[in-house]
Amino acid sequence: MSDSSQPFKEMWINLQTLVNRRLEEALDQSGDCPPILKEAMSYSLSAGGKRLRPILVLLSCEACGGDLETALPAACAIEMVHTYSLIHDDLPAMDDDELRRGLPTSHIKFGEANAILAGDALLTRAFELLANQIEIKSCAAACCVDLANAAGAVGMVGGQVADLESEHLENPSLEILEAIHKRKTGRLICSALTMGARIGGADPATLKNLERYGTCIGLAFQITDDLLDLTGNEEKMGKGVRKDADHGKLTYPSLIGVEESQRRSQKLIEEACLSIAPLGSHGQRLEELAHFILERDH
Amino acid sequence: MSDSSQPFKEMWINLQTLVNRRLEEALDQSGDCPPILKEAMSYSLSAGGKRLRPILVLLSCEACGGDLETALPAACAIEMVHTYSLIHDDLPAMDDDELRRGLPTSHIKFGEANAILAGDALLTRAFELLANQIEIKSCAAACCVDLANAAGAVGMVGGQVADLESEHLENPSLEILEAIHKRKTGRLICSALTMGARIGGADPATLKNLERYGTCIGLAFQITDDLLDLTGNEEKMGKGVRKDADHGKLTYPSLIGVEESQRRSQKLIEEACLSIAPLGSHGQRLEELAHFILERDH
Repeated sequence: MSDSSQPFKEMWINLQTLVNRRLEEALDQSGDCPPILKEAMSYSLSAGGKRLRPILVLLSCEACGGDLETALPAACAIEMVHTYSLIHDDLPAMDDDELRRGLPTSHIKFGEANAILAGDALLTRAFELLANQIEIKSCAAACCVDLANAAGAVGMVGGQVADLESEHLENPSLEILEAIHKRKTGRLICSALTMGARIGGADPATLKNLERYGTCIGLAFQITDDLLDLTGNEEKMGKGVRKDADHGKLTYPSLIGVEESQRRSQKLIEEACLSIAPLGSHGQRLEELAHFILERDH
Repeated sequence: MSDSSQPFKEMWINLQTLVNRRLEEALDQSGDCPPILKEAMSYSLSAGGKRLRPILVLLSCEACGGDLETALPAACAIEMVHTYSLIHDDLPAMDDDELRRGLPTSHIKFGEANAILAGDALLTRAFELLANQIEIKSCAAACCVDLANAAGAVGMVGGQVADLESEHLENPSLEILEAIHKRKTGRLICSALTMGARIGGADPATLKNLERYGTCIGLAFQITDDLLDLTGNEEKMGKGVRKDADHGKLTYPSLIGVEESQRRSQKLIEEACLSIAPLGSHGQRLEELAHFILERDH
């Protein structure tokens, strides 16, 4: 159990360290596979992400009274899925990015074939972790369904298809933008909350509340991402800023302006906190995390 | 339950029809996703495969005394994984194929980004099917583990990486070739047998026997594939023949000659049948299937 008097940033770093260690173990235990493949998987997994999604899994589990340790497989699984999606999004056929978190992207470093395959392997391994390492098998299966729905055709992958299609739209609307983001980033963040809640033994009402919280912070996260692209610091971001803006990509500020974007993300964070009010003090960390999303600078 | 007096080919067509119908349903139920994505998933799924892997799932389940119907989710899941692997293997960065089963490959038809994403979505949906539709959740989780191990870094994906690497080898050996094939096609075929057996309620000894059967027919299947590439009929194969041979790809005939390849596949089929001898008459269909692999002409 994490110490509730600990400053938020300290707690974050501790959980990050825990997740990083378990991710490394999960790769080491992945058995006999071609060294270049393991290297490519490990390279992208350890490229210094914030670990937002795994930390959400852990905090959601704790907020429901569960033991952090039991949520670690799901925490690692969701980070693997997130990482695979970054590898594939960066490919020449998609966003064609050469830098990610300040480092060469996977296909630049390992070649396109190995990048595609490392992504495939990470996605596959995520489900193996859930199914194998969550001890209550009804819960393991429910988490597989959560993660698959969030990551698949109706979720993240569908969002990426819609995002690529939106580049050719003449009159993009806020509705279209929001529908894309709900799929592309929102649903995966949401599944972090529901998986954590399931593992923590949440009742259906609490599960629903945490899901609502996830939907709100997911959208808020995307809006702040768009804002940081416009106003952020290149060094802290580890990637070029104004990239989306300069490419004429559909973003919140480009559609509704900077101020309205800020107002909207603020409202979403308020709604998120309201959703978890029934959790009382158990929801403290999640509340702090919601505010952190609003105030982050990278 | 299928009728054991039915001719083998008739049974095969019936099971194919059953699988095809369920695959279609599984896609229709996959909810709200961009039409182009659903179209790309459906295009490759319905491109007229033999359905070897799903039929193995169904026959393995029946051989263990299980009800065919209960094995259909796993049958569909494994065909989705097989189809995703074909889509990704055909990509320009990998084998760069423009034809598959006589039709334009996915990236030719839908563009590279959509092809990658359709593959990703099929892989993801496979795990959702297993976790959601297999009723006994301990069995669902075990099947997820089977399929993930067979398809992931230590299995199929690892095999594809090793296969791409082998193109640069100066002195390829039979051991290397066999290790590649065990991963690239063998383990997935093996998982068809173990998933079917689990769902059918097999005891550990029967599970092991069916796994052994799977290993043997998996290798035999690959050898006959190499032989068909050399000697097969282009029209029946739905793809160019001598393609592997002309590209100097590592194949059984190129390493040990045609006759020795034939002898070897025959021996493997004998061993496969021996492994399932303890099943008695329940193993009849699997025995027929093993012989069919040897005698197939496409």
